Amino acid sequence: MYPKSIKDLIECFKFLPGIGEKTAERLAFSILDLEVEQTNLFSDSIKNVKQQIHKCKNCNTLTDQDLCNICSDSTRDTTVLCVVEDTRNVFLFEKLATFHGKYHVLDGLISPLDGVNPEDIGIEKLLDRINKEKFHEIIFALKPSIEGETTSLYIKKILEGMNITVTRLASGVPIGADMEYVDSLTLERALNDRKEIE
Amino acid sequence: MYPKSIKDLIECFKFLPGIGEKTAERLAFSILDLEVEQTNLFSDSIKNVKQQIHKCKNCNTLTDQDLCNICSDSTRDTTVLCVVEDTRNVFLFEKLATFHGKYHVLDGLISPLDGVNPEDIGIEKLLDRINKEKFHEIIFALKPSIEGETTSLYIKKILEGMNITVTRLASGVPIGADMEYVDSLTLERALNDRKEIE
Repeated sequence: MYPKSIKDLIECFKFLPGIGEKTAERLAFSILDLEVEQTNLFSDSIKNVKQQIHKCKNCNTLTDQDLCNICSDSTRDTTVLCVVEDTRNVFLFEKLATFHGKYHVLDGLISPLDGVNPEDIGIEKLLDRINKEKFHEIIFALKPSIEGETTSLYIKKILEGMNITVTRLASGVPIGADMEYVDSLTLERALNDRKEIE
Repeated sequence: MYPKSIKDLIECFKFLPGIGEKTAERLAFSILDLEVEQTNLFSDSIKNVKQQIHKCKNCNTLTDQDLCNICSDSTRDTTVLCVVEDTRNVFLFEKLATFHGKYHVLDGLISPLDGVNPEDIGIEKLLDRINKEKFHEIIFALKPSIEGETTSLYIKKILEGMNITVTRLASGVPIGADMEYVDSLTLERALNDRKEIE
């Protein structure tokens, strides 16, 4: 029914997460409204991203170089390592511009129910780095879920006796949240982790 | 902060309607999860759509040929013409597979407030076709809004005395709608257009 190139493009938009038939149709038609320069850039960017982006050989952050910008930046604090579960979280922290240490990206979180065991998430590579780079503190910035806490605890155990401070992000009530909508687990954690007002 | 090719791709997704910074970032990263064959197809489809798709020289439907599939299909009913305001609506009707006449796509609707006058929406081309192709009935399948009704009335006036039946889509309560959520204009129209139960 649709001309072939439109049909192909609709199918391609459906590859993307959260995009169904209707949205894919709308987006495919909207490509026709763009300028040729825009569609050329769009087309090339898709190929470039797939060809040029890979994991940093040191920290696993996605990069277009051998070593990512953060690993090769000599002005960063080399005593603190922030461990995240996904490259996108590196960029989230970088947007804050308040953390100046190094990062390490795991290949996900330990989740035995989903068949993801400790050996599947690249802990070896992290431990190699910790041995080599002599961090004073490791911050676990993992999702506050069973999987996230299992993963931090598992790695913390291995690091015992190495004289490294191991921390996790604070859990608690999000800024601006209505108290009545905060779930009870979060509230319990916020109560346990309460801080003295200074 | 992001590698250049990811940054470019995020900007490209933001060209699309309804896609802001956050969604663009999510979609750009999801491209990395696709297979190379998928990203190649995606990249090529964007270029192909822009290069190959244009308006049918007869009816303005988007097509990759000189004459669209519908105009060149000799089995269609040549006595009925369905006038729509956008190519996408042709495909909507074709999905129903209950209309077998021909289509004509206007370049939008008359809307003096937005500076769109009758000469801007391609009425000349429609009238040429009506003179040549001798339709018995013209169905206006335009949006039931002031612009849609202005456009149908304007063209109907021109067609007076040509012995052509001019119709519009029925307006009324959508199937499955809760009566309490139907707006009063729609309800009024549904009451005026009521049909005898057979």
